[in-house]
Amino acid sequence: MSHNTFGHLFRVTTWGESHGPAIGAVIDGCPPGLRFTLRDLQDQLDRRRPGSSRFVTQRREPDEVRVLSGVLPAEDDPEVMVATGTPIALQIENVDQRSKDYGEIARQYRPGHADYAYDVKYGLRDHRGGGRSSARETAMRVAAGALAAKVVPGLKVRGAIVKIGEKSIDRANWDWSVVDREDNPFFTPDAASIPVFETYLDAVRMEHDSVGAVIEVIAENVPAGLGAPLYGKLDAEIAAGLMSINAVKGVEIGDGFAAAALKGTENADEMRMGEDGRPVFAANHAGGVLGGISTGAPIVARFAVKPTSSILTPRRSIDRDGREVDVVTKGRHDPCVGIRAVPIGEAMVACAIADHYLRHRGQTGRI
Amino acid sequence: MSHNTFGHLFRVTTWGESHGPAIGAVIDGCPPGLRFTLRDLQDQLDRRRPGSSRFVTQRREPDEVRVLSGVLPAEDDPEVMVATGTPIALQIENVDQRSKDYGEIARQYRPGHADYAYDVKYGLRDHRGGGRSSARETAMRVAAGALAAKVVPGLKVRGAIVKIGEKSIDRANWDWSVVDREDNPFFTPDAASIPVFETYLDAVRMEHDSVGAVIEVIAENVPAGLGAPLYGKLDAEIAAGLMSINAVKGVEIGDGFAAAALKGTENADEMRMGEDGRPVFAANHAGGVLGGISTGAPIVARFAVKPTSSILTPRRSIDRDGREVDVVTKGRHDPCVGIRAVPIGEAMVACAIADHYLRHRGQTGRI
Amino acid sequence: MSHNTFGHLFRVTTWGESHGPAIGAVIDGCPPGLRFTLRDLQDQLDRRRPGSSRFVTQRREPDEVRVLSGVLPAEDDPEVMVATGTPIALQIENVDQRSKDYGEIARQYRPGHADYAYDVKYGLRDHRGGGRSSARETAMRVAAGALAAKVVPGLKVRGAIVKIGEKSIDRANWDWSVVDREDNPFFTPDAASIPVFETYLDAVRMEHDSVGAVIEVIAENVPAGLGAPLYGKLDAEIAAGLMSINAVKGVEIGDGFAAAALKGTENADEMRMGEDGRPVFAANHAGGVLGGISTGAPIVARFAVKPTSSILTPRRSIDRDGREVDVVTKGRHDPCVGIRAVPIGEAMVACAIADHYLRHRGQTGRI
Amino acid sequence: MSHNTFGHLFRVTTWGESHGPAIGAVIDGCPPGLRFTLRDLQDQLDRRRPGSSRFVTQRREPDEVRVLSGVLPAEDDPEVMVATGTPIALQIENVDQRSKDYGEIARQYRPGHADYAYDVKYGLRDHRGGGRSSARETAMRVAAGALAAKVVPGLKVRGAIVKIGEKSIDRANWDWSVVDREDNPFFTPDAASIPVFETYLDAVRMEHDSVGAVIEVIAENVPAGLGAPLYGKLDAEIAAGLMSINAVKGVEIGDGFAAAALKGTENADEMRMGEDGRPVFAANHAGGVLGGISTGAPIVARFAVKPTSSILTPRRSIDRDGREVDVVTKGRHDPCVGIRAVPIGEAMVACAIADHYLRHRGQTGRI
Repeated sequence: MSHNTFGHLFRVTTWGESHGPAIGAVIDGCPPGLRFTLRDLQDQLDRRRPGSSRFVTQRREPDEVRVLSGVLPAEDDPEVMVATGTPIALQIENVDQRSKDYGEIARQYRPGHADYAYDVKYGLRDHRGGGRSSARETAMRVAAGALAAKVVPGLKVRGAIVKIGEKSIDRANWDWSVVDREDNPFFTPDAASIPVFETYLDAVRMEHDSVGAVIEVIAENVPAGLGAPLYGKLDAEIAAGLMSINAVKGVEIGDGFAAAALKGTENADEMRMGEDGRPVFAANHAGGVLGGISTGAPIVARFAVKPTSSILTPRRSIDRDGREVDVVTKGRHDPCVGIRAVPIGEAMVACAIADHYLRHRGQTGRI
Repeated sequence: MSHNTFGHLFRVTTWGESHGPAIGAVIDGCPPGLRFTLRDLQDQLDRRRPGSSRFVTQRREPDEVRVLSGVLPAEDDPEVMVATGTPIALQIENVDQRSKDYGEIARQYRPGHADYAYDVKYGLRDHRGGGRSSARETAMRVAAGALAAKVVPGLKVRGAIVKIGEKSIDRANWDWSVVDREDNPFFTPDAASIPVFETYLDAVRMEHDSVGAVIEVIAENVPAGLGAPLYGKLDAEIAAGLMSINAVKGVEIGDGFAAAALKGTENADEMRMGEDGRPVFAANHAGGVLGGISTGAPIVARFAVKPTSSILTPRRSIDRDGREVDVVTKGRHDPCVGIRAVPIGEAMVACAIADHYLRHRGQTGRI
Repeated sequence: MSHNTFGHLFRVTTWGESHGPAIGAVIDGCPPGLRFTLRDLQDQLDRRRPGSSRFVTQRREPDEVRVLSGVLPAEDDPEVMVATGTPIALQIENVDQRSKDYGEIARQYRPGHADYAYDVKYGLRDHRGGGRSSARETAMRVAAGALAAKVVPGLKVRGAIVKIGEKSIDRANWDWSVVDREDNPFFTPDAASIPVFETYLDAVRMEHDSVGAVIEVIAENVPAGLGAPLYGKLDAEIAAGLMSINAVKGVEIGDGFAAAALKGTENADEMRMGEDGRPVFAANHAGGVLGGISTGAPIVARFAVKPTSSILTPRRSIDRDGREVDVVTKGRHDPCVGIRAVPIGEAMVACAIADHYLRHRGQTGRI
Repeated sequence: MSHNTFGHLFRVTTWGESHGPAIGAVIDGCPPGLRFTLRDLQDQLDRRRPGSSRFVTQRREPDEVRVLSGVLPAEDDPEVMVATGTPIALQIENVDQRSKDYGEIARQYRPGHADYAYDVKYGLRDHRGGGRSSARETAMRVAAGALAAKVVPGLKVRGAIVKIGEKSIDRANWDWSVVDREDNPFFTPDAASIPVFETYLDAVRMEHDSVGAVIEVIAENVPAGLGAPLYGKLDAEIAAGLMSINAVKGVEIGDGFAAAALKGTENADEMRMGEDGRPVFAANHAGGVLGGISTGAPIVARFAVKPTSSILTPRRSIDRDGREVDVVTKGRHDPCVGIRAVPIGEAMVACAIADHYLRHRGQTGRI
């Protein structure tokens, strides 16, 4: 029910604004005995972290996560934390807040932002850095996703950029090892796209503009049987999770919108029996989910992120008093927020799968 | 939490399979005093009903809905029902079941269907007519949506087909009055597209094949302020609702995936003060939702439906015993299930908005 | 979240009023493969049924339950239904409604009833037979409880009256076989109490009065480990379930209020290792729950039912227009509604345990 | 759904153990614009705080609460915080942990504690200070309750001890001003009971024993109409909230168990029209709730706390390896944990009422 919680049995509740003292998450329902290290969380947080290239915001956030509850040190290795089954509280201090950057726009409604909507809804708003809608909140999703991924044995969730603005990758070049390469600031799986994106985004930045992006997330080793036929469809919850990320405007599973143009004969993923006694699908138009339930094939989701709304080019708007104003959003902003959305998308997919794994086990006992 | 419930304060729980004695819904949380007639529900159900043209399944379902609880007759008009605030139970008998049609495929896994996934999940499945995944269930969504639309004063939710297979409408011809015209079996808003779709779908049917579709739903008169910044984003819940419909593989809000290719300067919906003292947006790339909260602009959602999986052309698959088989799905099936999805999409959007209307009122008291 | 739903993974949603066409329940989350017969449900319903003695209301309700969804006939026995894992819809027609009995009090606020509270809350109310608060709704709880009891292997939930008005049973005479004896209209486990209760209740009826009761429910074979430390304490959810029954005003676990007067040395249930390798508790002051989690000892709950508010003796009240009136509730009412609450209490305890069984399995995988 | 969350629209999620670095709460759904000060929270926390007399544990916990999110400073008074409508994170550092006190009983199952149940449930447990079941968690309830009480205009929730062990107060002496008097370490409303309780509890302590208590909570100015007829009965949720407190074994509303012995003619709270146009109840046997809905009369709830299980007198038990042991719980423990439960009970009642206030407003719009 909560506006700030994701999941049902593996439940992630986040709190905090970019300009308060800290942000945090409470993860309730983690299976007892789950083992993890701070490093597991930190590695994912570091991937999402601002300041790692000139294509993302220059805010400096060390993003050091602390675990405040719900764990015991493992008897065999004090670096390892063991979940006790009670709520795991995660927390990150906010150390680089500079709230003065935002001062002048406290009364203006920035186009493309939720400023006006917040004011109507709440009668007031935290204008500092986007308040609750700040991209900062997504750090907690990433940390939670790192735990979620461990809930399902063998689960592997990886994401990549497939499009920035008008530039798409060449799927023929897809190479997962490229995604996290040091010289790749884009999470692209296509090495050839790196210089293309660099040139393109440099131009966008020069124009004081921004662009959107499309991200693809693929989850492998998802057991068949997770999900439910209707309102709890695995893909419906993945869609909700991805759409709950800031600035996301579209979500697809498998062939997604392209499926609408397919014939039924093309779209049917034919089955044969595999050598290991499990079915093999001749194709994966369905993206690993049929009737809301995982089939054992890789789960494929894509989501679209709109261009960063905070830009240095003036846009026309109004202020709280209804006066017409020109708005320029200073501060340190990503020319393409979609880039940093890659680990966030992975995290939401991992959380949805982990939640359904526990729900499936609860109802059926079949895992 | 439930796998079969949608919404939080305006809660719709559905039950039933296509081949059982009946299907039904329980609507909990309806505001007391809400007035409606059976006709209000029936009109929407009739729009969704199979058998209304050669392009949808020839199953005959009168779909007469009964209201079994939660209402009193209005003192001023006995045709009018008044919600008491307690659960409203809706029910439709299944009268045309012919379960023998499905007999031969009880042990086969139909490609593109959830048969295999059901078997893995539940250890058994109701093979008759898709069981719980039957399109029949959507009748209850439509009835619930008719109530939901009345919860928000002035709310107007309308949908239309914008694409069938490879054929798109011409948006320049958009005319809402065309959508429900007698001679329009497609819910298309473009009169010129009717003969095009007819010719196209006739060919598809002749080939024993099927195609997908894209539907657009527009909600007008949505008060600004509904939704929440993150996991309860209005668009996240609309996405979940639409993705929870059978065969839906993609969802967009506003410009959706196209937004990824826009510049920030283009995508920012500039604001000016309107004559009625409310802001006017120069464009609606955002689709009426910013930061998860409605802005007062029309809400625009689109969703993609995959081609009907039940086709007369044989596809290769396996059966429960792992034997390789060729599957042909006899029975009476839509060549494009997307057509009938139009009123279903409207219903899910109406339910998501009604739910957030009550949640907003609960938290803020500002309506 | 719903006002009309109990449970989280084993979810029971009920609907219906005593004077509508039917009442029903939707049970969502039932483990697939669960086998049951109509007889299993009907046997419990018959225990709760009005009209079985002169001490309960003379309304005639055959209470024949139908199962409308969520099951398949077992291949080995067509009498046996097998849960498919999708929602199980249960329904009972209302056949003896006589709504005219209630006509004259439509505008009066009956003391001890919720009439006034309903009017303030909803702005209107269904005055016929108590509307949603009718004891009739409890039939669906009993049917749901019959399913719940089957979810936990070996679970045995039994209830008994321990007090009617001022008359208590003698616990030294406790004999479970007495409870369902033909000549025992009271669910008392103490055969000696039967004539005492008869004489006592006859006098109460003659005086046009009513009395309350205390019921004890004991659940055996509850696995250790169900529940959670705080807001999901097994006893908190049992308490919520029992208190959600009409007219219940108090709930206890184990020694309950008497525990407040005990010393810590007395109240500690000392442990020894049993022959089967499981701990044995020297006493069960805790009622089978410590820290919110079951210990394997029998779960003991008690609840207090207030006297029937519908009595033939006039009470002073007001009507909707604020006029002072004397209210007499005609109609057919139980002199002690607590008697029929025995199977209802059993059902709520079974539902709470079944729900926690699935939740425990989901989170921990340890069952 | 969460095991660690209370409420639906006004949602309190707590986390933390007594021996971790901190404890905290996330309050989601707080109405935007709600004004409060740190003092409001701290005053309640100070009432619950250990170390304030020799009758409660000598642990020293300054219990200084911090507000980490969800508020803005008021423009007119920087001491005042204004809720923004987003999650309010509260946190208290743990400063007096001394975990060595607990070392020797890490492998023993303390009678009356949840040690064994935890081990069976989770396969491991945090033995330090009761882990998640520590009374320390209740500090967050008290802080949340202080906010909850502000959600409902005019709401006044007060609690008092009515019984400690075998000693009851004299209700004829009830004086609310006595409860928080400096020289009253018992929250008793009966000044004459203070020396009686002192003598009694000193003797209990000398004997290395403990006793239970009964607490009564009264909520005034609760608007009529809050609650729902069945599973969302206001009293069912109050019961769940009170029963979710550590060591609580029984809950009553109004006359509670005593109502079972009343006649219907006695128990009916007769109504007359008051001078302010609102009904006046001649008595309040119902405790302010009829049919699950508040009537406007004061809400009266009572709950029983069992004797402290941590005592210095040895009790027989077993350890993790099944060996028989004698357990003595050293450390600093309350001879009567019930005393400190008074503000906790107030908090849970306030939270349940605030939650229903928002739910009622959401569904009906009638506040």
